[in-house]
Amino acid sequence: MEEEMKKNSFIAIKHHINGFPVESDFELKSQHLRLSAHPGSADIVLKNLFVSVDPYQIHRMKTPSPSHATSSAAPFITPGQVISVQGVAEVVDSDDPNFEKGDFVKGIIHWAQYSVVKARESALMKLDTLEFPLTYHLGILGMSGLSAYVGLFDVGKVKEGDKVFVSAASGSVGNLVGQFAKLLGCYVVGSAGSDQKVALLKEKLGFDAAFNYNHQKDLKSTLAKYFPNGIDIYFDNVGDEMLEAAVANMNPFGKVVVCGVISDYTKPKPRKGSPINMMEIVYKSITIQGFLVSDYLNVFQDFKSKAASYLRSSKMKAIEDISVGLHNIPSAFIGLFNGNNIGKTIVKIA
Amino acid sequence: MEEEMKKNSFIAIKHHINGFPVESDFELKSQHLRLSAHPGSADIVLKNLFVSVDPYQIHRMKTPSPSHATSSAAPFITPGQVISVQGVAEVVDSDDPNFEKGDFVKGIIHWAQYSVVKARESALMKLDTLEFPLTYHLGILGMSGLSAYVGLFDVGKVKEGDKVFVSAASGSVGNLVGQFAKLLGCYVVGSAGSDQKVALLKEKLGFDAAFNYNHQKDLKSTLAKYFPNGIDIYFDNVGDEMLEAAVANMNPFGKVVVCGVISDYTKPKPRKGSPINMMEIVYKSITIQGFLVSDYLNVFQDFKSKAASYLRSSKMKAIEDISVGLHNIPSAFIGLFNGNNIGKTIVKIA
Repeated sequence: MEEEMKKNSFIAIKHHINGFPVESDFELKSQHLRLSAHPGSADIVLKNLFVSVDPYQIHRMKTPSPSHATSSAAPFITPGQVISVQGVAEVVDSDDPNFEKGDFVKGIIHWAQYSVVKARESALMKLDTLEFPLTYHLGILGMSGLSAYVGLFDVGKVKEGDKVFVSAASGSVGNLVGQFAKLLGCYVVGSAGSDQKVALLKEKLGFDAAFNYNHQKDLKSTLAKYFPNGIDIYFDNVGDEMLEAAVANMNPFGKVVVCGVISDYTKPKPRKGSPINMMEIVYKSITIQGFLVSDYLNVFQDFKSKAASYLRSSKMKAIEDISVGLHNIPSAFIGLFNGNNIGKTIVKIA
Repeated sequence: MEEEMKKNSFIAIKHHINGFPVESDFELKSQHLRLSAHPGSADIVLKNLFVSVDPYQIHRMKTPSPSHATSSAAPFITPGQVISVQGVAEVVDSDDPNFEKGDFVKGIIHWAQYSVVKARESALMKLDTLEFPLTYHLGILGMSGLSAYVGLFDVGKVKEGDKVFVSAASGSVGNLVGQFAKLLGCYVVGSAGSDQKVALLKEKLGFDAAFNYNHQKDLKSTLAKYFPNGIDIYFDNVGDEMLEAAVANMNPFGKVVVCGVISDYTKPKPRKGSPINMMEIVYKSITIQGFLVSDYLNVFQDFKSKAASYLRSSKMKAIEDISVGLHNIPSAFIGLFNGNNIGKTIVKIA
C-alpha cells in the first residue's frame, strides 16, 4: 500500500468572529495528510477543485451560544480547524466501492487542498456535469440555484404575473430568483448595492427594474414607486429596513420568503431584530417564512434538469465571481460583506 | 304605513384616537330614526340586544393614513358617526323577504339602540341559537370562537401533541385557543396580566400552565422554563417583546399565528415594529402568518357545530364579561386595554 504523506494547506479562523470579518481573523495552516484510503475505512480522498464562498458561513464563525440559532446542516466552525463547505473535487483514492479514482464529485468538502471524507457525512455525490463547467454545480446548478428555486416555488408558491421583489439581487441566490421569476412571467424588481450591479440586473438578466439602495433616502417610497400595484412576493436576503419597507408595500396575502439576513450577519452583539409592523401582517394576512435549502434536497433532480434546460436554451445565465488560490478565500469571503461580489462567489483551488 | 320616529342613542368617537383611549374620547349621541322599513328599500330595522367590544376596534379609530393598514372588513371609523360592530339583534320591521319581525339575527350592527341595515352589507343572518344564550353567538360560537378555531387549525395546522403558547390567554380569543388546543391533546401554556386570570386558565380552563407576564423579568427565560422542549405554535395576540421571546423559544418548523397586536394598538405614532430575529426565522424555518377571520367564513358552520357539541358535553366553557347599557360601552372598551376584561367583552343594550 502506498503511504504517500502530503502537506495539506487549509484556511481556518483564528478565533470566533462576531463582527465584521477582516483578513487577520483567518490563517493559512497546514497539516500532513495520507493521500491513500485505508482499507476498511470507507474513506474517500479528494483533491479539492472549487469551493463555495457564502455569506451564511459568517454565522457559523460566531461564538456559539444558546440564543444563536444554527442548524445541523450548518454547524459552528471551530478556530484552527478545517472549515466544511460545498465544493467540487476529484477522487484521488477511495475505499468506498461507490467512488473511484478520477471521479468528479460534489458535496461537503473543505477550504483546503485535500479532504478525506466519508460519503454519507459529506453528502458526496458523483457529479453528472451535463457538460457544463464544474463551477456551475456550485452555483446555478447547485445549492444557490436550488435555494432560489425552492424559495420561489415551494416556499413562495409564486404564480405567473406575481409582482416579485428580490433584495441582494445580484448575489448568488438573488440573481437566480429574478431569472426564474422572469421565466415564469412575473414582474421582477431587484435591489443591489452598486450601479454596476443594477445595470447587470436590467441589461443582462432581464429584470423589469432595479435600484441601488445606497441612493435611496426612503426605501418605503422607493418600493412604492417600483411597485404601484404592490408586492406579492418578497424574496428577502437582507432583513432589517429593507424587510420593513417591503412589508409596508405588500399586497394582501403577500409572502416574504426569508433566505438570508445579510444585515444581521456582521452586526456585533447585541443584535436587535428586524422591526416588523405586525398590524400589517394581520391586516394584510402576510406570511413570513424562513427556509433552509437542506430541507428540499428531494427536489434537487427536478430543479437541476429544469435549470440545465434553461441554460442550454440560453434562457438563464450563470453569473460567477471566481478567485484563484486557497490563500484568496479570506478576501473573497470578506468581499461578500463589502458587496464586492457579483453572482456566485467561488474559489478555484486546483 | 306606520311612521313611528324614535330617538336612537348611539356611541361615537369625538375625534380619531391615536393613543390610549379615555372616556372623553367618546360621546353618547342620538338621532331620530324611522322604525319602519320603507317599501322597496330592502331595509331591515333592528333593535340591538348585545354588541361585541373588541381590541381591534381601536385600530379603526386611528387617523387614516396610507401607512396604516386596515381591511374592507374593518373600515375606519368616522368621528360623530355610528360605529359598526358585530352584534345580536331582534328584527323590528323588515322590507327584506328573508327577515321578519321577531327574528333574532346576528351580523354587523352598531353601538346603538337601533340599526337600519341591509342584509348583504351587514352580513345579516338569522340566528340559530341552538338553545344557547344569545351572547354565546358573539363569543364562543361567534367571531371570537371562529378566530381561535381557524387560527389554530387552518393557519397554525395544529397537531395532537403540539406544544402551544397563547398570549392574552384569558382574552376573548386566547381562552378559546387554549381550550381547543387542550381538546386536541396539546401541551398549552398561556400568558395573562393578572394572577386572577392565571388562576382561571389553570383551574377552570385546563391549561397545563400559565403565568402573569407582569411578574417576569426576562420573557425568554420564562418561556424556556415553561417550554423545555420548545414551542411548536405561538398564537400571538400581543406582538412586541412577547413575540420576540416566543421566536427565541420556537422549535424548527414552528409557526407563529398572528391574530392581534395589542401592544401596538394604543401606542402613539411613530410606532416601531416588533423586533424579530430573522436569523432564527431562517435557521429554524419558522413561519409567521397573519390572518383575518373574515376570510374564513366558509368554515363557520363546521366550526359552530363542533364548538356547540363541545359546549353541550361541557368540554368547553364560555367565559364572558358582560356590561349593561349603551353608555357603558366606552368604559368596557377602555377596560380591554387596561386588561380589565376576562373572556369575551359584551355590552347588553336592551
